Amino acid sequence: MEKKGLTYRDAGVDIDAQDEALRRIKGLVKGTRTAGVLADLGSFGGLFRPQLEGLSEPVLVASADGVGTKLCAAFLSGVHHTVGRDLVNHCVNDILVQGAKPLFFLDYIATGHLEPGVLASIVEGVANGCRENGCALLGGETAEMPGFYAAGEYDVAGFIVGMVDRPNVIEGQAVRASDLLVGLPSSGMHTNGFSLARKILLDVAGHLIGDTVAELGQTVGQILLAEHKSYLAALSGALGYVNALAHITGGGLTDNLPRVLPAGCSARIDRGSWEVPGLYAYMAQCGGVAQDEMFRTFNMGIGMVAIVSPDRVGELEAHLDALGESHVRIGEIVPGDEGVVYA
Amino acid sequence: MEKKGLTYRDAGVDIDAQDEALRRIKGLVKGTRTAGVLADLGSFGGLFRPQLEGLSEPVLVASADGVGTKLCAAFLSGVHHTVGRDLVNHCVNDILVQGAKPLFFLDYIATGHLEPGVLASIVEGVANGCRENGCALLGGETAEMPGFYAAGEYDVAGFIVGMVDRPNVIEGQAVRASDLLVGLPSSGMHTNGFSLARKILLDVAGHLIGDTVAELGQTVGQILLAEHKSYLAALSGALGYVNALAHITGGGLTDNLPRVLPAGCSARIDRGSWEVPGLYAYMAQCGGVAQDEMFRTFNMGIGMVAIVSPDRVGELEAHLDALGESHVRIGEIVPGDEGVVYA
Repeated sequence: MEKKGLTYRDAGVDIDAQDEALRRIKGLVKGTRTAGVLADLGSFGGLFRPQLEGLSEPVLVASADGVGTKLCAAFLSGVHHTVGRDLVNHCVNDILVQGAKPLFFLDYIATGHLEPGVLASIVEGVANGCRENGCALLGGETAEMPGFYAAGEYDVAGFIVGMVDRPNVIEGQAVRASDLLVGLPSSGMHTNGFSLARKILLDVAGHLIGDTVAELGQTVGQILLAEHKSYLAALSGALGYVNALAHITGGGLTDNLPRVLPAGCSARIDRGSWEVPGLYAYMAQCGGVAQDEMFRTFNMGIGMVAIVSPDRVGELEAHLDALGESHVRIGEIVPGDEGVVYA
Repeated sequence: MEKKGLTYRDAGVDIDAQDEALRRIKGLVKGTRTAGVLADLGSFGGLFRPQLEGLSEPVLVASADGVGTKLCAAFLSGVHHTVGRDLVNHCVNDILVQGAKPLFFLDYIATGHLEPGVLASIVEGVANGCRENGCALLGGETAEMPGFYAAGEYDVAGFIVGMVDRPNVIEGQAVRASDLLVGLPSSGMHTNGFSLARKILLDVAGHLIGDTVAELGQTVGQILLAEHKSYLAALSGALGYVNALAHITGGGLTDNLPRVLPAGCSARIDRGSWEVPGLYAYMAQCGGVAQDEMFRTFNMGIGMVAIVSPDRVGELEAHLDALGESHVRIGEIVPGDEGVVYA
């Protein structure tokens, strides 16, 4: 048996480099502190004291998510400070649709070899996203897994916890035929459909990440890394009267709207009611992708749908106008159990 | 520009297979339901109503973690139902040390191509771990990331939220010189040190995953996959009087004990006070690893340390005896700021 005098560092794990990265991260995390945070990073778990005053029955709402293969665009372009905001905003939207506002967030970052600069960039994005949403970055885990991820690659996951008073939980049970669908524009592909998008833009069309796509006036990197929008600011003032909210993630309008429809209600969507961003027509043409497949894969320019009764739709639209938030009526609820019906 | 008629499935993402896996998982998740759970899996976020009665100032405690390169042992052996329990128990222990009991858990499972059977095995472990700890599996994310993970490989992360009343938070500030360190045995390497352990056992010693290590009477797979123990059952009845708890994870006794020591207190550990499992001597010998490095990398047979005043140590030991939980006095608190001092 060969004797080598191995240390943990020889096996690829550098605890000192982790410590250095942790120091850099601590400053970023401090910037996300909210009133509820009780402990510094570095203890075994983060402590948070929620404000319970005025709530009749506090309910915690939690969600976990990743950024998916959008990360490949970060790897190819060397831009690592945007995927963190993607992660936070995705999670914020996922609990917003149940009426919850975020309390705190934790991240998981896994990599083969830790590069403290890259790690700090990722966490910078997470911290920015948290701060913008009034959400404390309460902790997280950085896992160095030698031989597990390719050089320069990593994966990230996020976990969010928010709160809502039980009478204010949005469940979609109030949705009725004749309710209107108000779409809020997405800010790009958000975090879904990237496996297909990369295949089309990089493989089929043969672009490099830095190429400008003439038809779209943006580089492939800009297209792929456009950050996932948070709808918290736009909709937190409207949670009291929308009947349902649908975050348009993997599965598109086709698969996400049915998740909030009660039995006997379908969503009839008029595909001509909004201007689908040119990116989608470009990708459909390059890849020869059928329209139904496009609508089941991409958000097609609509990142969030509010379902609201006809007598409150004006209030919602005025609210969004006052905030400078774009919106468009994209359809209505009709009797039926077909999920989404495209007109 | 080539036209191919691409679908999302062509790009490696199979939404139907995901749906099938989701169905299999739903049954497992149901088995973890606790009184607080309000919503089924499949909504955008999980809802949980915590029991707040009798708490003066409820504090949420959250932690995120992974299993690290222990996963490689699962890949090599084809055993996928244990890493989930590792993940849950690690998280449970991380919040237990602050005095919190678990409310709910979420998982993140990322893979290159989804094999529903493997996914169900992973979630089976997670669900078993949750059920055993009285913790609801409230949701999670399964990310299929083509070309991102090697064939048959995946990564998992877990996120736990627990609760503790603020007066009962364990912070270590009560630790005083002459307090005693009571060690609770680990059930193997738990989830730390696997990069080095694999290098020694597989590369240096040249074992295959199925080989029996004669000196230890176990296969390499059994050694590497021994499940991380939860100390919730052992210690939940002692949270009221222990001065600190340290979960011995990455960094070993050397780095984890100082995290709970107040200024002016060091931990003097008598390395001869417990029988270090033969595995560690075997690995130290094969790899020529120095003893200090061993104690900074592995738990060396101690998975949790309770720090308790001399007048309560008998109560703790009787409590553990009554539960059939092993324990051993491994040292005491002494004046100083040297962190851990080995005697």
